[in-house]
Amino acid sequence: MKDTVIGIIGGTGGMGRWFAELLRKEGYEVHLSGRRQGMGKEDMARICNVVVVSVPIGVTREVIEAVGPLMPKESLLMDLTSLKEDPVRAMLDASSCEVVGCHPLFGPAVTTLSGQHVVLCPARSTLWFPWLKEIFEKNHAVVTVTTPEKHDRMMSLVQVLNHLHTIHLGMVLGHEGIPYEELSRWSTPVFEAKLQFIGKIFQEQPSLYAEILVNNPHLERICNLYRETFGKLDNVVKDRKAERVVELISKQSAFLWPKS
Amino acid sequence: MKDTVIGIIGGTGGMGRWFAELLRKEGYEVHLSGRRQGMGKEDMARICNVVVVSVPIGVTREVIEAVGPLMPKESLLMDLTSLKEDPVRAMLDASSCEVVGCHPLFGPAVTTLSGQHVVLCPARSTLWFPWLKEIFEKNHAVVTVTTPEKHDRMMSLVQVLNHLHTIHLGMVLGHEGIPYEELSRWSTPVFEAKLQFIGKIFQEQPSLYAEILVNNPHLERICNLYRETFGKLDNVVKDRKAERVVELISKQSAFLWPKS
Repeated sequence: MKDTVIGIIGGTGGMGRWFAELLRKEGYEVHLSGRRQGMGKEDMARICNVVVVSVPIGVTREVIEAVGPLMPKESLLMDLTSLKEDPVRAMLDASSCEVVGCHPLFGPAVTTLSGQHVVLCPARSTLWFPWLKEIFEKNHAVVTVTTPEKHDRMMSLVQVLNHLHTIHLGMVLGHEGIPYEELSRWSTPVFEAKLQFIGKIFQEQPSLYAEILVNNPHLERICNLYRETFGKLDNVVKDRKAERVVELISKQSAFLWPKS
Repeated sequence: MKDTVIGIIGGTGGMGRWFAELLRKEGYEVHLSGRRQGMGKEDMARICNVVVVSVPIGVTREVIEAVGPLMPKESLLMDLTSLKEDPVRAMLDASSCEVVGCHPLFGPAVTTLSGQHVVLCPARSTLWFPWLKEIFEKNHAVVTVTTPEKHDRMMSLVQVLNHLHTIHLGMVLGHEGIPYEELSRWSTPVFEAKLQFIGKIFQEQPSLYAEILVNNPHLERICNLYRETFGKLDNVVKDRKAERVVELISKQSAFLWPKS
């Protein structure tokens, strides 16, 4: 859209900075607001017709509640948080402008959008939603449009379960007390990939992953399911009968790869 | 070595076929013996000065016990099994020839040895061990020379723990009843990689992985450690305090990536 000016709160790091770069490449004027630098929220709401909230989950609601009421009716308030129910509800409640929840399913190190997955939750939007979707699609991202509820349910698997699973393996290996460098010499390609996944969480930004876990409404269910499922696997493998393990695998495989 | 003729029992599939291709590329004469085709064991022991056992773990001992006594003293009996204690013990007991245990830490789909990991356990070998090691090293594999005991202990992590961990995730996802194709649309790069790891076990050759699990002597210990460790993680995440999760991660991270 013509004369679109974008403001990103939390645009000095992580996905905010990544999104700023994408929008600048698309020719837009982008203003940033970080914790200690950049444009103030009041100026941002006045000057920008799109404001993007990209701050840690733990402070997302308070930032939305501060900027939402300042946004003119015809502007867009959106977020990049990895949860959608609570932030979208907060954006709807705090503002009277257009609202779209957005979750890019990748990290800021990604250099091309091509083939990457993006989830959009249009909550109150007629003008801006097609504009936003087009930006991702013209860059060949795979866009899924859904509700915040469905998004958070799927993320209880793609993020909560996935991160728990990686942290759990890292804890077992940590217990064994063998450093990464030694483990790596003995690794298969899959094991090495898993060591890299552990490193990404343990070494880079553990607080990001901790926030994703503790803020997802489905956490308890996933933890219980994870524990109970291992009980079943444990029972079968301890019998040390290969054919029973194969039978168990085949049963689950039929759910994941149903014959078409 | 001059006039080296190699026989591979189980050379018509998987790693046996892969090893045959490597040796032929190195200029050696290689004979194969499969379940229903190729050279018989007696002829193989008579004609070949190196015999490689590459059959499923469950029948490795009986194949070694059949061929071992036929091997001349100056020849080499070796295996490619993913366990080393029991097969190496069996090779030493059944023969009076040279014995080396070998475990390539990758699958037959690998197209170059460069950077791949190979474990060698020289058990009774003066002539043939340097020959074998040189074949891997000239192809730029990373060779680790160790005892069968140390190998099996490391493989209780690299294989038993790793495969349990992958199968466990596959079972949780199978329980959710969402097919791979749908899950994949919502995946992050790490989650997609894990779906591929699950597919590799569930879709390709579950019996191979089942055999690796049920035959490793450390299975019970790993299962118990895996269950108890999740208990600790579960306790911490359910409190929903991000800083406690970060604290837990940092403690484990210090074991895996000690400050040098």
